[in-house]
Amino acid sequence: MKKILNDVDTIVQDMLQGFYFEHKHRVAYDAQHHIIYQKDLANANQDVAIISGGGSGHEPDSFGYVGEGMLSLAVNGQIFVPPTPEQVLAAIRLVNKDKGILLIIKNFQADVENFLAAEARAKTEGRQVDHVIVNDDVSIEDDASYNKRKRGVAGTVFVHKIVGAAAREGYSLQNLKAIGEAVVSNLHTLGVALTPAMNPTQSGVPFTLEDNEVYYGIGIHGEKGYRKEAFFSSEQLAIELVNKLKSLYRWEEGDAFALMINGLGATPLMEQYIFANDIRRLCALENINVTFVKVGTQLTSLDMKGISLSFLKIDDPNWEKWLKAEGDAPHW
Amino acid sequence: MKKILNDVDTIVQDMLQGFYFEHKHRVAYDAQHHIIYQKDLANANQDVAIISGGGSGHEPDSFGYVGEGMLSLAVNGQIFVPPTPEQVLAAIRLVNKDKGILLIIKNFQADVENFLAAEARAKTEGRQVDHVIVNDDVSIEDDASYNKRKRGVAGTVFVHKIVGAAAREGYSLQNLKAIGEAVVSNLHTLGVALTPAMNPTQSGVPFTLEDNEVYYGIGIHGEKGYRKEAFFSSEQLAIELVNKLKSLYRWEEGDAFALMINGLGATPLMEQYIFANDIRRLCALENINVTFVKVGTQLTSLDMKGISLSFLKIDDPNWEKWLKAEGDAPHW
Repeated sequence: MKKILNDVDTIVQDMLQGFYFEHKHRVAYDAQHHIIYQKDLANANQDVAIISGGGSGHEPDSFGYVGEGMLSLAVNGQIFVPPTPEQVLAAIRLVNKDKGILLIIKNFQADVENFLAAEARAKTEGRQVDHVIVNDDVSIEDDASYNKRKRGVAGTVFVHKIVGAAAREGYSLQNLKAIGEAVVSNLHTLGVALTPAMNPTQSGVPFTLEDNEVYYGIGIHGEKGYRKEAFFSSEQLAIELVNKLKSLYRWEEGDAFALMINGLGATPLMEQYIFANDIRRLCALENINVTFVKVGTQLTSLDMKGISLSFLKIDDPNWEKWLKAEGDAPHW
Repeated sequence: MKKILNDVDTIVQDMLQGFYFEHKHRVAYDAQHHIIYQKDLANANQDVAIISGGGSGHEPDSFGYVGEGMLSLAVNGQIFVPPTPEQVLAAIRLVNKDKGILLIIKNFQADVENFLAAEARAKTEGRQVDHVIVNDDVSIEDDASYNKRKRGVAGTVFVHKIVGAAAREGYSLQNLKAIGEAVVSNLHTLGVALTPAMNPTQSGVPFTLEDNEVYYGIGIHGEKGYRKEAFFSSEQLAIELVNKLKSLYRWEEGDAFALMINGLGATPLMEQYIFANDIRRLCALENINVTFVKVGTQLTSLDMKGISLSFLKIDDPNWEKWLKAEGDAPHW
């Protein structure tokens, strides 16, 4: 597998330097701690800074979402490895002491441990810090070994957008945490792989697929899915994903949903939009009232060809307003 | 090669319906003629409508660039086949009769013929129509058979943005044509493939590459390049592309350039940004003054893994202002 890179040990630095080359008029870059943040952070007239991050390999998440009305700072670990507590603490310290800080954390054990260790240390420095843990991935619900540990995947981008837009409107840290947690409790994501993600820092493959096979319920770090199946069509994938996701909700006719259709890294936009059209038809058949749709390569697993579908039941009309709010994050 | 699609005969309709599902609050969709256009076209307070389009398979070009400050309408042909004169004429007829119309055409024989046929017919209906032909592709300059026919590729997106932002400022049709042609004469693009594009409407492969090979100078419809080479690194590709492109310009120190680094369909953003960092270092070494950078999957060749680099010498400071101007096209 040919990959456009140089030294495997400097992948994250090289990538962040490339992003900074494009966006240096509006973001700053802490090269030591691998942090991308809003250049005018000190002057931002919101009371709470939103910090997200995690392992690399999920681009454009999360640095591509740094901008007004979305993330204040993004902290980047190595490929599929979360940032250290020191990196997260360095991000917290870039924020003015008088501001609150909300950490958005994907629900993987190492991510949660490292972000919460940083939160604890920041509190000893007199900081007001809290967090939201995103656990939208429902792909592994039938696997007893994972039953209590739903992973944080593409739906995290909706949390970034909603909480970030609310922060810009002046909501308090306590309110933002409550908003984030309410969103998470209404948010479910399920993905399917056509090819595995190849990690350039590791040898071997996370799983194999036959030429005609797909794999439902894969994770974003090479985690295996729940079922392999011979592949026929976009519609086949859409039916599996919609059926599983809708079964997780209780809703009444008229209830509104926001959807995200997410390319997992190497999925052409043509195919994402064809899949989006199948989702449109299925939602119409099921009388699912879709009031917001996002299609694109939003949170990836390196070079995986595949797609994920996220459902968010809009439990508060403000969520839809915040999803639609203007901002300047380059990859939203 | 697994592709997320259904009936191969309805690919373009399915894709456009999916895009419309996402963007129906701001665009309209003429399903008969495969046209996506600004919903408030009739009320747009600019004197000239900008129409682009071409064959499908280059997503998000061009429908992803329909929005304020960019394209007014995009006309979509079948995969790698330009829209018919009837489709282009239908797009022209969607514009108020009192407005001028500028067609942006990629320099392929069938595209030019079909768009100019529509232009001629629209003029007989009393329309003011003119055009800009984009021929930024320099990849085939050493091939005598193509010497007089430079293709229109990713640089077209810069033309969309600059001309579209200028149109919003109220420039006349004559001025917009002059701006577009001046941009084209300063615009050069060169691409490299790591894998060929697989066209779902055709059997067979356009070319083959060994596991360790890349192909410089490929086109966006499976056209062969000018040299295959064993692949080592992102930097190797950057050196070949920068050296060839810079040789096409005469410039003095301080002259400004805008750059586009474009993923060709299946290239992860991580790799695009690593390549962008190599371009940054080479431009610094060469004292090339880069004042605008765009990185992303902007104009593709289906599922090709590869990358293109576009250079635009900023001959008029307004161009930079228009590249940076705000707008609401979803994929800019």
